[in-house]
Amino acid sequence: MTILIKNILLNNQTTDIFIDGNTFSKIEPNINIPADTVIDGSRKAILPAFYNTHTHAAMSVLKGLGDDKPLFDWLNQDIWPIESLLSPDDIYDATRLAILEMIKTGTVFFSDMYWFMEKSIQAVCEMGIRAAVSLVQFDLFDEEAARKKKEMALDFYNQPNPCPERIVKSISCHAVYTVSEDLFKWTAEFARKNDLFIHIHASETAKEVEDCFAKYGKSPIEKLEEWNLLGPKTILAHAIHLSEKDIEILNRHEVSLATNPASNMKLCSGLFKFEKLLKSHCNLTLGTDGSASNNNLSMLEEMKLCSLAAKIESMDASAGKAQDIFRIATRNGAQAFGLNAGIIEEKALADCILVDLDNVFLTPDYNLISNIVYASDSSCITDVLCNGQILMRNRIIKDEKEIIKKAQKLSGKIRELKKKAQEEQKK
Amino acid sequence: MTILIKNILLNNQTTDIFIDGNTFSKIEPNINIPADTVIDGSRKAILPAFYNTHTHAAMSVLKGLGDDKPLFDWLNQDIWPIESLLSPDDIYDATRLAILEMIKTGTVFFSDMYWFMEKSIQAVCEMGIRAAVSLVQFDLFDEEAARKKKEMALDFYNQPNPCPERIVKSISCHAVYTVSEDLFKWTAEFARKNDLFIHIHASETAKEVEDCFAKYGKSPIEKLEEWNLLGPKTILAHAIHLSEKDIEILNRHEVSLATNPASNMKLCSGLFKFEKLLKSHCNLTLGTDGSASNNNLSMLEEMKLCSLAAKIESMDASAGKAQDIFRIATRNGAQAFGLNAGIIEEKALADCILVDLDNVFLTPDYNLISNIVYASDSSCITDVLCNGQILMRNRIIKDEKEIIKKAQKLSGKIRELKKKAQEEQKK
Repeated sequence: MTILIKNILLNNQTTDIFIDGNTFSKIEPNINIPADTVIDGSRKAILPAFYNTHTHAAMSVLKGLGDDKPLFDWLNQDIWPIESLLSPDDIYDATRLAILEMIKTGTVFFSDMYWFMEKSIQAVCEMGIRAAVSLVQFDLFDEEAARKKKEMALDFYNQPNPCPERIVKSISCHAVYTVSEDLFKWTAEFARKNDLFIHIHASETAKEVEDCFAKYGKSPIEKLEEWNLLGPKTILAHAIHLSEKDIEILNRHEVSLATNPASNMKLCSGLFKFEKLLKSHCNLTLGTDGSASNNNLSMLEEMKLCSLAAKIESMDASAGKAQDIFRIATRNGAQAFGLNAGIIEEKALADCILVDLDNVFLTPDYNLISNIVYASDSSCITDVLCNGQILMRNRIIKDEKEIIKKAQKLSGKIRELKKKAQEEQKK
Repeated sequence: MTILIKNILLNNQTTDIFIDGNTFSKIEPNINIPADTVIDGSRKAILPAFYNTHTHAAMSVLKGLGDDKPLFDWLNQDIWPIESLLSPDDIYDATRLAILEMIKTGTVFFSDMYWFMEKSIQAVCEMGIRAAVSLVQFDLFDEEAARKKKEMALDFYNQPNPCPERIVKSISCHAVYTVSEDLFKWTAEFARKNDLFIHIHASETAKEVEDCFAKYGKSPIEKLEEWNLLGPKTILAHAIHLSEKDIEILNRHEVSLATNPASNMKLCSGLFKFEKLLKSHCNLTLGTDGSASNNNLSMLEEMKLCSLAAKIESMDASAGKAQDIFRIATRNGAQAFGLNAGIIEEKALADCILVDLDNVFLTPDYNLISNIVYASDSSCITDVLCNGQILMRNRIIKDEKEIIKKAQKLSGKIRELKKKAQEEQKK
């Protein structure tokens, strides 16, 4: 499959772009090679697509169920009672809804942390996006639960990957307040043996850090280091409440950090030390977290929030510069998962978005990156390509109506589940 | 002109809505009155449109010119040198661009602070939106400038209002650091005599407050009270750095406050005391500020930012609740300018938006207001009505292409002006 994009703006220059298979094979003006598909790029610009390094995709069907509450109340009252009742087919429908929203907003990759991963994998496979799909370790300090989780991990990672070009299997540990020392250590070893990416919620709230000190006499970051979980293939989500010592540890292990500004502000977890960590050896990346705590999956919106949060955190208007923010949402996110993507250059993976330069949000066009980070919304994106395939063309995505209908049906079921859960709680 | 909207969702109930002239005249199921236009509202919801109580519309052509700088550097280096060179026709083209963006994002009213107001008025008149258009007082403590400004005010307010149904003339004073005591006092008296709304930037930055204390021995709010500028027809923009005494003064005068979270975070001015002021006697409203410091005019985005900023300011996840945020962006904003609008009920002005309930951002639909505040973007809005007229139908707005083209042409001129201004600065 070949695609030729004619007369498109790339870094302020008009060029042609030839995609052969899953990579950009030639970028220069006036390419005259026959292609299966020709796209007229005039009055459009091409940009890297977005890499969402921390989300719980299936939570898209829980959005708006519980708002305006701190993390632990929200989890205990609104989220966990419902989540535990979702079936594998529910996860499939919910993940498809999430992927639909991601494509609409220019995202081509997500690092997922959920369960019934075979269903997430099926949705990702079918819809053409990329993902790091992880089994989430979560035992609530119960030995039997830990034993089962280990079994599930062995089983999951033994199953063949139906789509190795676009899906990488990773492994998650939920957090220090939900996972035992034994399961953490086992996971570290299992990940090392199988060369897996590791994905962990870490130092999200002040309470998490306090409780960790009370229990272990150390911070979550210190414990994760002790348990052998840190390294360049580790992605820590949130990482807000960090001591100088924590930062020194993260630096030394060159971990990737996934900041989630919408969720962190909405749940009032705190503000990520953006400028300080930008200057560290950590690889900064951007995630939306799940839709239930955001409440969307738009990396466009997340970039603006990331910049604004960075400025307020440091009280410095020059913090969180548009160019830095755009890079963490694109190239850095791809690199965290070993992808040569998030950049429009020859030999890179053919992932990209096309934006409409006559869109009101992108007018005037003194600085396209500034416009994308600070001014745009999803209406600016006309086309999305991933791995050399067109996922959205002129804002149309395959099966959109059916995906929405299925999600609406599922939300009816969730309403009933919520009612029952509330009745149970009253008893 | 009459419009009948059939089978639309309003407050979780399906109903019909009949618009006669500029008001909602009947809201009930199964209305069978012939109408000039019939809109099928199935799978849509009707909501109040947005009232943007603080902006500088024409700055839409300056967006992205200067980013990631604090307020005073940004004004002095990037904005003022260009603004002073814009012609009345430039202001017309720029204001049309702003109004186009506002309609796309569901806004039907803006309180403007700029100059060449006759051109803003022309744009507002033609495009069907509402506005409070103000002459801005700004003398930089120069007597001759003050004299001229007074003359301009007399002249402006003597001219007939070509569109009294949708336009109200108000008067602005830029800020305590740009307007002399004499001009402030004159404006207060002039506004009182002519029953005008007064619009002022107040206590936006810590520096403004410090400088005011250094110069006058009082805070900006104390000085504005002393100069007779406060009352229920006063709208103070920003109002971030407030003492307990300031809040007591604002309370006593029942002023309206326009919070501008995007601009306040982007320029690092600070965070508005949302919950504290929500509980006061002030009327809280929402504004986007100008596009140059935001960088868009989307009240949808501004609502989310307002909530997130409120939560972070108080470190309380229950602050900035979706319902409160939605109300300040709609009903409160309309009421600040004496409009019986911002609410869908019989006899209210027929201003509204229709949203697509099958849009991915609005799926699932447990809580429509939560979805609008936290999850939506402009792609959710299909139709916009103002004063009983349809301004956008199925996302199409009259003259969109021509407005964009004119703005693009103007941006070419601004690029040249910027180059010249930079050359001047070097000399």
